[in-house]
Amino acid sequence: MSKVLVFGHQNPDTDAITSAISFAYLQNQLGVNAEAVALGNVNEETAYALNYFNVEAPRVIETAGSETTQVMLVDHNEAQQSVSDIKELEVVAVVDHHRIANFETANPLFYRAEPVGCTNTIILKMYKEHGITIPKEIAGLMLSAIVSDSLLFKSPTCTEEDVKAAKELATIADVDLDTYGLDMLKAGTNLSDKTALQLIDGDAKTFPMGDKNLRIGQVNTVDVQDVLSRQAELEEEMAKQNEANSFDMFVLVVTNILDSDSVALVVGEPKEKLEEAFNVTLENNVAFLEGVVSRKKQVVPQLTKAFS
Amino acid sequence: MSKVLVFGHQNPDTDAITSAISFAYLQNQLGVNAEAVALGNVNEETAYALNYFNVEAPRVIETAGSETTQVMLVDHNEAQQSVSDIKELEVVAVVDHHRIANFETANPLFYRAEPVGCTNTIILKMYKEHGITIPKEIAGLMLSAIVSDSLLFKSPTCTEEDVKAAKELATIADVDLDTYGLDMLKAGTNLSDKTALQLIDGDAKTFPMGDKNLRIGQVNTVDVQDVLSRQAELEEEMAKQNEANSFDMFVLVVTNILDSDSVALVVGEPKEKLEEAFNVTLENNVAFLEGVVSRKKQVVPQLTKAFS
Repeated sequence: MSKVLVFGHQNPDTDAITSAISFAYLQNQLGVNAEAVALGNVNEETAYALNYFNVEAPRVIETAGSETTQVMLVDHNEAQQSVSDIKELEVVAVVDHHRIANFETANPLFYRAEPVGCTNTIILKMYKEHGITIPKEIAGLMLSAIVSDSLLFKSPTCTEEDVKAAKELATIADVDLDTYGLDMLKAGTNLSDKTALQLIDGDAKTFPMGDKNLRIGQVNTVDVQDVLSRQAELEEEMAKQNEANSFDMFVLVVTNILDSDSVALVVGEPKEKLEEAFNVTLENNVAFLEGVVSRKKQVVPQLTKAFS
Repeated sequence: MSKVLVFGHQNPDTDAITSAISFAYLQNQLGVNAEAVALGNVNEETAYALNYFNVEAPRVIETAGSETTQVMLVDHNEAQQSVSDIKELEVVAVVDHHRIANFETANPLFYRAEPVGCTNTIILKMYKEHGITIPKEIAGLMLSAIVSDSLLFKSPTCTEEDVKAAKELATIADVDLDTYGLDMLKAGTNLSDKTALQLIDGDAKTFPMGDKNLRIGQVNTVDVQDVLSRQAELEEEMAKQNEANSFDMFVLVVTNILDSDSVALVVGEPKEKLEEAFNVTLENNVAFLEGVVSRKKQVVPQLTKAFS
């Protein structure tokens, strides 16, 4: 069998990078010639995890067709989040925890999705089902992904299975879950050397809502004021992005990972819809969102409803 | 949790019916209020299996929205093979062994697909993963589906996993695999009381190929000559269907389940493409297809290539 490439989504987060590594290793143990690659450079949080467990970052690709015909997708399935030549490749396996959309195959395939908080929680099950031992460093990376996706179990996307998996993996990885987890999350909050554009757009996604087009970005921090000290610069960049890309509104969600709250910074109109969505009043374009940490579960549905 | 309906595809075969039963039972054991239903009446082969293991046929539905908001799909995923109101329902789980196409969800879900010969081979794994004991009659139905989909292991779609699963299930069901399997397959070959339309169209599917539109049906038999004795009547009905539905060509694959060979009966044009696809010469619209038993693997790809 020729080489199969394994990769997560574009703008990779810790789960996208590490699930490629953990799933490729599982495939190797099962006799498949699989290589983990990435669709972008690792962020600082992921770099911390890779460095801690002494694993190299996967090499970055944009297309796969020049080196293989078969690929395995982790942590995504939608074509627009994948390699640009995905339609020309055969997807032989998918492991994911998202909705299924814009995905179609010509042949039967292996597809494993579960509505849990992290792809690596599913991959852990698969290691067990196949009776494959997880090396310490792989367990550490899998654990890192669960901590990242669940914000140390505080996100509403986190399930009991994710918590159980993380505890089990922490034992194999031989780390203290809370200490390591917080250190890793903090490593991802080093925002000082980021440009305003990197801050607002590093993880932003576009959402059509009613007849408006919203761009929603999120940054994690341990000091919200530190981010807000750059408010003027951020607003200028958000306005620029709105104009350049026809966004009606740009919402930056600044999440305090210690307190599990967020602050929204908003540029664009109609702002009253955002106030309605969260039952808040904007002051100087800023509103406090109590208990909000998950864009997927606590921001997008509420805004969608207000704009519909 | 309100009731969840579990069902296989339209024109249900033995796997579609029994995987709904076996998966609903598994869900019940896991605490989910699930009911197996069917998108059509059972065929004679399935009726034999249900009768042998003393299980009632699931009730037949066409839409699900009047009684539930959540459904689980087995042995299919494509919308046009499902309930007619599938787009208005939430699919919370899928277990399947086909390609993925025309399928999209708004939310994360449970999706389990593997490229094996039968849905019940996957469901058996899930029973084991959850440590749920399989009742004798459910094991018998699951076994029946593997025998049906694999034509007693002779189809090229059959994998080692299917064979292993069938042997294991036969032990639980307390039947002799070969004897029971052949008896069940033979029960599905009672064609004498079928109309010509039932014979040609009972299991037919439409396939666009190049600029032509092909309809391909398949019947299993233990006596090909018995079917061919009705050739004039069958050809008349095939011509009628071609005209009524703008099919360019109707191909009826008559499969001898004892010899694992087939005969193709063809009405429509261009016939030379079929001759080219199988490297045969039609005589009186009939050609012998040595070793051909699987439409999915040994008929559709060959014709697709010849017509492209």
